[in-house]
Amino acid sequence: MYLGLSEAADFLKDCRDAVIIVHQSPDGDCIGAGFALKDILGCFGIRSRVECCDAFPSRYDYMTSVGCGEDFEPQTIIAVDIADTQLMGCLGEKYGDRVQLCIDHHISNTGYAEMTLLNGEASATCELIWELAREMGAEISEHCAACIYTGIATDTGCFKYDCTTANCHRIAARIIEDYDIGFAKINRSMFEVKSLGRIRMECRVIELMEYYLDNRITMICITKDIMEQMGVDSNDLEGCASLPLQVEGVEVGLMIKEREPQVYKISMRSAGDVNVSEICRTLGGGGHAKAAGCLLKGSIDEVKSILIETVGKAVCR
Amino acid sequence: MYLGLSEAADFLKDCRDAVIIVHQSPDGDCIGAGFALKDILGCFGIRSRVECCDAFPSRYDYMTSVGCGEDFEPQTIIAVDIADTQLMGCLGEKYGDRVQLCIDHHISNTGYAEMTLLNGEASATCELIWELAREMGAEISEHCAACIYTGIATDTGCFKYDCTTANCHRIAARIIEDYDIGFAKINRSMFEVKSLGRIRMECRVIELMEYYLDNRITMICITKDIMEQMGVDSNDLEGCASLPLQVEGVEVGLMIKEREPQVYKISMRSAGDVNVSEICRTLGGGGHAKAAGCLLKGSIDEVKSILIETVGKAVCR
Repeated sequence: MYLGLSEAADFLKDCRDAVIIVHQSPDGDCIGAGFALKDILGCFGIRSRVECCDAFPSRYDYMTSVGCGEDFEPQTIIAVDIADTQLMGCLGEKYGDRVQLCIDHHISNTGYAEMTLLNGEASATCELIWELAREMGAEISEHCAACIYTGIATDTGCFKYDCTTANCHRIAARIIEDYDIGFAKINRSMFEVKSLGRIRMECRVIELMEYYLDNRITMICITKDIMEQMGVDSNDLEGCASLPLQVEGVEVGLMIKEREPQVYKISMRSAGDVNVSEICRTLGGGGHAKAAGCLLKGSIDEVKSILIETVGKAVCR
Repeated sequence: MYLGLSEAADFLKDCRDAVIIVHQSPDGDCIGAGFALKDILGCFGIRSRVECCDAFPSRYDYMTSVGCGEDFEPQTIIAVDIADTQLMGCLGEKYGDRVQLCIDHHISNTGYAEMTLLNGEASATCELIWELAREMGAEISEHCAACIYTGIATDTGCFKYDCTTANCHRIAARIIEDYDIGFAKINRSMFEVKSLGRIRMECRVIELMEYYLDNRITMICITKDIMEQMGVDSNDLEGCASLPLQVEGVEVGLMIKEREPQVYKISMRSAGDVNVSEICRTLGGGGHAKAAGCLLKGSIDEVKSILIETVGKAVCR
């Protein structure tokens, strides 16, 4: 059942002893939404606890250091920013089939919860949390404002991406005006700072780039041997698939990672009009228009030729 | 003489045949302000021309391709985003002593113009141009909106930096809502894309980084020999001084560039509480709290020791 804002607000004001689940590999939006909602429920004397199957990265300490909440037997299960129970990780088994309210902005939300507050046009789940707080008449604390700002900044790439809404700019205006959250420091830690190891690894990955069709296709190919030489594993390379898109003129960026002998994981990113989800679907994979993936089998040379041919056709269409 | 918004609006509505000067090494804010103002004057049938001593970078074509304006003998000289006549480059001689109106947001503005509309709290000169357009009752075109958005995004690092105001978020909200300017594409070209040569050069500069005091001070030292090896000159290295601040834990980033034998140009950037302007002043230079510079003479080893000692004291204070 899909709820409107006021129905969701009514449900929240009447709930008690709530567990708020956030998704695995937690990011700024789900952590922000979870901890902001915990603050908001607290305004109404409602006890709650944030749960996640993974640890929270330390750069989000300013949101999480208030603590996840005390131990109690939950009477209410709420999921925030979770499109599918699979994204709950190990918590899926415990809570997946008994979520009462899900608050989300992913249009792909599977509707697994009893009640869902879904707005696919919101830039971030935190945008919905802000609206809920106002609907509920909650007093938004500085901590809560920092959480909401973080979620919006995370999901919009600091107001850079297409998904940025006029509404989220207005929320940011209100937050900057009314609270001293140190937004520039938050943005610096989220968007500018990397570990020295990460910076060095990215430079090495950039050295590996191969260019096709006048740079319109840029490919990074990382075999197990290269990972070993670099002293990294597949997880360390997360996020590197978008590095080719930094290069002027690139339309599609490809990252090939060897998963096992003769099996390669392909990540495809589009900087322009090419729909990489369509390309990946023809190769047995899927995803979004700008970010998709698939698995390919064969020798590395075979895999490269398939990709250059398939992506080349789409780029030159 | 300092003007209020309505006085500046009155002056603009009554002027004719205006030259709008923007500063040397033109950036998104001065180009945006210049071309937006040209559009706004056009609404009132006022002929104007944008002038700059340097060429406009091609990534700003969407603003400049309307053309700078026809040739005519100017009756009005307006400067936008120019704090000091020195920043006009070769146009300083021609126009420097006869600017009637200067529109600027730099608190350091020298007041060289007959009349100045100055707001040091505005994030960008384009924020003032928006306010002026509304005060004048101008109809803001899509091109004008794209110019104003670009200026604000440029000077705030896409709403990331401390200088970002609630007002500029509200202007962005209005622009996103009312115009189809393709802001995400603008942001991508301004903040994400670099030439392959630039990316490779930055990687090589990162390799040269030296770390002191547990990475709290990070230094890049580029001698003439290194520039020659890299095939770059001092201008190509512009912007590299902020690369050390990407590294987690860095408080002060230093860049040393050899200008001539035994003479080094030092650029200092602060990521935290250290006021690098103060440090540079003790070394005979100056600048802002977060970005300053000075010249040092001596051997490279002498220069490095002076810097490590002086900056080290400030960092450990």
